Amino acid sequence: MSLATSPQLTIDRATCAALDAADPLAGFRERFDLPAGVVYLDGNSLGALPRATPAHVELVIREEWGTGLIRSWNDAGWFDKPRALGDRIAPLIGAAQGEVVLGDSTSSSLFQVAVAATRLRPGRRVIVSERGSFPTDLYILEGVQELAGADAGGPLERRLIDDEADLDDVLGDDVAVVVLTHVNYRTGRMYDLADVTRRVHEAGALMVWDLCHSVGAVPVDLAGAGADFAIGCTYKYLNGGPGSPSFIWVAERHQAEARPALTGWHGHARPFDFGLDYAPADGVARFRVGTPQLLSVAGLEASLDVWADVDLEALREKSLRLTELFISLVDTRLARWDVEVVSPRQSARRGSQVALRFGGDGMRDGLPETADGYAVMQAIIGRGVIGDFRAPDLMRFGFAPLYVSHTDVWDAVAVLEDVLATETWREPRFARRGAVT
Amino acid sequence: MSLATSPQLTIDRATCAALDAADPLAGFRERFDLPAGVVYLDGNSLGALPRATPAHVELVIREEWGTGLIRSWNDAGWFDKPRALGDRIAPLIGAAQGEVVLGDSTSSSLFQVAVAATRLRPGRRVIVSERGSFPTDLYILEGVQELAGADAGGPLERRLIDDEADLDDVLGDDVAVVVLTHVNYRTGRMYDLADVTRRVHEAGALMVWDLCHSVGAVPVDLAGAGADFAIGCTYKYLNGGPGSPSFIWVAERHQAEARPALTGWHGHARPFDFGLDYAPADGVARFRVGTPQLLSVAGLEASLDVWADVDLEALREKSLRLTELFISLVDTRLARWDVEVVSPRQSARRGSQVALRFGGDGMRDGLPETADGYAVMQAIIGRGVIGDFRAPDLMRFGFAPLYVSHTDVWDAVAVLEDVLATETWREPRFARRGAVT
Repeated sequence: MSLATSPQLTIDRATCAALDAADPLAGFRERFDLPAGVVYLDGNSLGALPRATPAHVELVIREEWGTGLIRSWNDAGWFDKPRALGDRIAPLIGAAQGEVVLGDSTSSSLFQVAVAATRLRPGRRVIVSERGSFPTDLYILEGVQELAGADAGGPLERRLIDDEADLDDVLGDDVAVVVLTHVNYRTGRMYDLADVTRRVHEAGALMVWDLCHSVGAVPVDLAGAGADFAIGCTYKYLNGGPGSPSFIWVAERHQAEARPALTGWHGHARPFDFGLDYAPADGVARFRVGTPQLLSVAGLEASLDVWADVDLEALREKSLRLTELFISLVDTRLARWDVEVVSPRQSARRGSQVALRFGGDGMRDGLPETADGYAVMQAIIGRGVIGDFRAPDLMRFGFAPLYVSHTDVWDAVAVLEDVLATETWREPRFARRGAVT
Repeated sequence: MSLATSPQLTIDRATCAALDAADPLAGFRERFDLPAGVVYLDGNSLGALPRATPAHVELVIREEWGTGLIRSWNDAGWFDKPRALGDRIAPLIGAAQGEVVLGDSTSSSLFQVAVAATRLRPGRRVIVSERGSFPTDLYILEGVQELAGADAGGPLERRLIDDEADLDDVLGDDVAVVVLTHVNYRTGRMYDLADVTRRVHEAGALMVWDLCHSVGAVPVDLAGAGADFAIGCTYKYLNGGPGSPSFIWVAERHQAEARPALTGWHGHARPFDFGLDYAPADGVARFRVGTPQLLSVAGLEASLDVWADVDLEALREKSLRLTELFISLVDTRLARWDVEVVSPRQSARRGSQVALRFGGDGMRDGLPETADGYAVMQAIIGRGVIGDFRAPDLMRFGFAPLYVSHTDVWDAVAVLEDVLATETWREPRFARRGAVT
């Protein structure tokens, strides 16, 4: 029975504990090192620390670097790590072996693939993206528009949509590339990867997917969708560590023709010949740039050991149970504060996160004004429930199925309710100030 | 008295031990964790492990990531690390505070500054570089030539020189940018930074310096030279760890006008406003791209603690003593194997490394053929003396003054002599095979 469609079901903490007891993924919680007293609902921004990571990074530092020194480029396989770890990410996104490689940041990886994709559609002068993209995607595309469009006398044009429903309004034979984020970073709204890709292809354009909020959270089938390029992040649901390397996916059919923008030596066909001229490596390796940041790569390597054991269907099932439970509890317990669930209520359209917003204004239920999402978030963080806030008014909660439990969800809503009921969010220490990350 | 110009001076191991005893930098050796029995002469490729690094990285992993979680973006100052560490690198290269920021790899950082520099000289269609650059610089510049030149109807032209003596042959009013490596990665030959910069400016072009083999090895005075842009590496002499982040220097006078290629959100003026349009940050921060790889940044942070205590004049003095001693011992003890010192013998023209090559062919001193540099290098590595080999024929030895001693130099040459005299380099296990890193 779906919790979200069963408001008549009485849920209490014991119900949640029973769901935890029956959870096939419950054992993964022990593979993470979360601080005591914390309910961590921000794994969609920075994933939790896998318990095995510190020892693995220390081994790389002490043994591979400290003792192996320069020899580790061969002996420890350092040079091939970006490709080797790419192959381990591939099953998480419906990609084949040899189609994925690590990049630097998602921003620079998007630059790499957006230039390459644009070059595969010469003469077409438009890049389509969406207003709700994580902003760096739009910023990076501005750079691509200027550089990649210069040979036709000026920047490429940008067309922005608000939703996949708008796609038909902007697609035409002048569109080179469409860059969309599979799961929206604010609302968790999820696109139909296959259907959007199909529509973009019908217009003769190429499809670039940003999987930052998808990988490790929802099923992704790039091969099934027949997409062209993708990039993604490993420090969110994949738990690779702060700023761990991005990844790049290039469909095998494009690899021989795709020309990246950053033509560094690690993407060269024969990097150790030290020749004068650039020649791209075979396959996705040509999208590599320079020397990988190997301590951060080591963090990712340790986290991928966890992912090797995850059943992705069970992951999605638990993710939906968690978000449905959260939505249901918000609906039933927070209704009097006029809380709006901004994320899609339809499971198929929702990633693994839920965004809330306070509606209304003026007096309501005896309270003098609407609660402020920023202050409420600070107050619950002060109580150990960690989500985050996105201006102007969204409280975000991410549900990483590997370490978030049903009782965590219960406790989070209980703290939210208590903070709202006792108005502790009004304390001056929770007032907005400065930049909000 | 200069060792290199005093072949009559009798040097023995006791002389070297006396030099070590009088070495004002000798105490730094204890701040590195080098394996027993190793003489490490490859710090010009990958620096040694500072003793404090493992604990610092572990603290970042366990406390900042594991316990602080997303809060560390503010509480641990993660967002500002690339600028904060840039300010700590600045004194090592003659830069002011606010002029240096961390990048991803040196390859991607060169792309960033080369596009920006080219844009500051519109209409000029030539980029000058040199045949002896580390190849990724040439490869990256090919990418820049194509993208940044497109608005004038085709790629920018590349002109390559062999030495600064050739500069006048290629400089003209069509040259936009000159990209040179201060210290050559193969031979250690060092350019006159100020003089070359002056000549480039006289031609109306901008000067981009690659400091990969300079920073932490030789004096660098970018401000004194009046240079325009620079990039460099932190995993060689700075000991930041394998693949630790590059840095970017932009002279203050260019910062307001310079437009980088990769316009990511970490280089945005107001990254947390999440606006639709790119607006560059003030100052060098606009050269940032995406989220920094913070475990690798942590490695660099620990190594910069060491550098905060280094007297750079004493560093250069010791560096020259080490390279002069090495050259002198090679001249006196290895002469019968026809070893050529490829690096400049003039101190002012030499970085902190020395390259050797075997000359001649056929019979010599009773040996049937010339020694093979690759095999000799493998043989001495097998004996614990770690340098490296660069095709087709160079044996490279780097002398990182913080952890290489005069007795190390003695022992290295003694092992070289023994390997050559006993012909152990002829053993089949030292034959060339496959890629050489």
